[in-house]
Amino acid sequence: MSDADVPAAADDHYIVVSADGHAGLACDDYRPYLESRFHPAFDEYVAERDAHRAESLEMNFEYIMGWEKDNEEGLKGAFDPAVRDKELDADGVAADVLFADADAVTGAASPPFGAGLFAGAIVDPDQAFAGAHAHNRFLAEMCSHSPHRRGGIALVPITHDIARAVAEIEWVAAQPGIRGIMIPTMWRDHTPYNDASYDPVWAACAEAGLPVHTHSGEAPMEEYGEHIGAYLAEVVWWTVRPAWHLLFGGAFERFPDLKFVVTEAAAYWAPDMMWKWDQYMGGGHTTKKMAALLQGKISKLPSDYFGTNIFIGASTMSKEEIRRRYVIGTDVVMWGTDYPHPEGTWPQTAAKLRADFADVPVDDTADLLGLTAARVYGFDLDELRPIAARIGPTPASLGQDPTLRADPAVTAEARWWKAEYGVRPPV
Amino acid sequence: MSDADVPAAADDHYIVVSADGHAGLACDDYRPYLESRFHPAFDEYVAERDAHRAESLEMNFEYIMGWEKDNEEGLKGAFDPAVRDKELDADGVAADVLFADADAVTGAASPPFGAGLFAGAIVDPDQAFAGAHAHNRFLAEMCSHSPHRRGGIALVPITHDIARAVAEIEWVAAQPGIRGIMIPTMWRDHTPYNDASYDPVWAACAEAGLPVHTHSGEAPMEEYGEHIGAYLAEVVWWTVRPAWHLLFGGAFERFPDLKFVVTEAAAYWAPDMMWKWDQYMGGGHTTKKMAALLQGKISKLPSDYFGTNIFIGASTMSKEEIRRRYVIGTDVVMWGTDYPHPEGTWPQTAAKLRADFADVPVDDTADLLGLTAARVYGFDLDELRPIAARIGPTPASLGQDPTLRADPAVTAEARWWKAEYGVRPPV
Repeated sequence: MSDADVPAAADDHYIVVSADGHAGLACDDYRPYLESRFHPAFDEYVAERDAHRAESLEMNFEYIMGWEKDNEEGLKGAFDPAVRDKELDADGVAADVLFADADAVTGAASPPFGAGLFAGAIVDPDQAFAGAHAHNRFLAEMCSHSPHRRGGIALVPITHDIARAVAEIEWVAAQPGIRGIMIPTMWRDHTPYNDASYDPVWAACAEAGLPVHTHSGEAPMEEYGEHIGAYLAEVVWWTVRPAWHLLFGGAFERFPDLKFVVTEAAAYWAPDMMWKWDQYMGGGHTTKKMAALLQGKISKLPSDYFGTNIFIGASTMSKEEIRRRYVIGTDVVMWGTDYPHPEGTWPQTAAKLRADFADVPVDDTADLLGLTAARVYGFDLDELRPIAARIGPTPASLGQDPTLRADPAVTAEARWWKAEYGVRPPV
Repeated sequence: MSDADVPAAADDHYIVVSADGHAGLACDDYRPYLESRFHPAFDEYVAERDAHRAESLEMNFEYIMGWEKDNEEGLKGAFDPAVRDKELDADGVAADVLFADADAVTGAASPPFGAGLFAGAIVDPDQAFAGAHAHNRFLAEMCSHSPHRRGGIALVPITHDIARAVAEIEWVAAQPGIRGIMIPTMWRDHTPYNDASYDPVWAACAEAGLPVHTHSGEAPMEEYGEHIGAYLAEVVWWTVRPAWHLLFGGAFERFPDLKFVVTEAAAYWAPDMMWKWDQYMGGGHTTKKMAALLQGKISKLPSDYFGTNIFIGASTMSKEEIRRRYVIGTDVVMWGTDYPHPEGTWPQTAAKLRADFADVPVDDTADLLGLTAARVYGFDLDELRPIAARIGPTPASLGQDPTLRADPAVTAEARWWKAEYGVRPPV
């Protein structure tokens, strides 16, 4: 991280880059972006979405109408770049990353055919790509306004057709402000992500500097019946799962520049995951019979891929995740407001930051709130600095001691298992 | 826990109950236990197992032959009760719990058709039940010798046929020394475990006092290709998964006496899992939209089901899991030697206990090493006490300070999120 962007005085500004936000049109408004041969099927999709919204309203009328009325103007930032900039400004956010599905309450802003957070469930590959491309066209347009403040995440249903996926990646890579792609969380009956047949996708993304994402949402809904608790208990896992299939499938060996980001699936799991993964490399008696099988597959300790290849868009971090920041890695995990979803911090981001970051050293805060995201997504800090100077939070506004810095002795020991198990990189 | 069985002096003995051990015949020796109409299919199965063993030997000859030669006599305890008692004695273990698949090295002791740790993958229900019953007949015979020292875990492929499963449960419940059942880890294409159609199974187990188990091993192997790391990274998750499907499906509400035990899938995950599950109950802003959906489904905080309905057979705990004992719960997690598997502590259990438990208070040690397991499996402490007095470890042999006791102030605060989130039981 560049020390220049770590506040040195109480009134210096943080450059906040929100690593989780959403953009999208009301379903029906995707029509002009969608090839006309898909319009008849799209009519059915819109009708299904309308019915879903009506059902949501029936279950939860007061909450939904309250949310939509209280935030009527700000919610338009999902598709109106001027409104978005205004809302980002008010929230103290210099730039944000834009995933699909802007309406998390009634699902009324999903790309055609569910090509956003639920793309893995689409059966027809033509619909999967048509829906994704419709959203990507909208997104490119959205990001063409203030592209230095936008990190558009394009939709690419790689499970459905690898060659078409590569073509779509090449198209989105040329659009200003598009800074990553999202792939289906679940591969379902398609090829698992550990398989080398996806290499053209990883190659294209590494080459174009587009981080690959999963974002929470999809899970095997057909297995839960009425039991929403089972969904809640495992949705994070399904979202993170592709990370280790890429890692242990050797994708980061073959494409060292490939970045993979897990978004809105928390970060609390990272420490134990790194510990257990590192342990497979030969730390301790119980894994002896397994370690031999991993030799030659990866060249570093699994935890060493975090911060170079694997990153975490943790959205609104919990206090416990902030406390675990050194073991997770302040070069790994990124704050996000989840704007304009109600489970995020918008439009009260300033208050939430003050509540959770008052005791956090300023260098850690700078990394968590923006500098790590700027590095992952290639935001130009020269362009964001003046914006932050106008709207960004400061150590004073967060109630911080501006002289507090991370203790290198603490950060060095954070991944405790390295010493306890004596784990070593594979040979 | 009964204070009477917590050592009060340096030379008092711990009652060790290993919550993870394995018993089984060499594959071909299951033949007399298997209905003869299955013998032709069984011939094929044995040939497949023999080929698998040959393949294992080819890959890892030196290690396998070394292990089998060094432990030739002791390995017979997998099926010979007199040898088993001798090995338990030498390891300081008063009683142990017996799962199938005694040969974890070459898989040459698997019940017919893979009805042990991989039962979920069996396609033909007749084979699944025939294989399970063959093992259960052997197990009943094994446990009829010194049943007070045995906790036989019968095989019941509940995914394949619920009525037959109930009949098998009723049969095994009548066998001395059988103290639980193991179900397939994965339901695959069958009905998920959150579904109420399994209620007759849960009812039968609750009624008979037989805890239901999953044991690590099964995972979607067909998705991993050559990438063993991906298997390692998720096998624990697949093993634990049924626990939350029972919990959030309401099984413990309908059957408050039902016990579910997750075995040899570690325990490190339990604290974060309890934290996140409790949080769904309304702790904090981000889960507001979800919490309402859980109201009425369960009557306690999810973490409160641990120690009454959910237990963990953690086998050889890591030092970190021992450090996390209060948040996991010393009334939840149980030590196990995994005898006669090489990834366990046998035949060096005494040394391992001394290395890992020297600093642990004696009351915690007593719970972790045996008293919790005795309670879960209904072992008669009056029968085990004289055995332990002959062979059990002591505070002195573990290098412990015999006056050290758990600090109630520390244990009370261990589940930190209850205060931080102010979580409350659902209404």
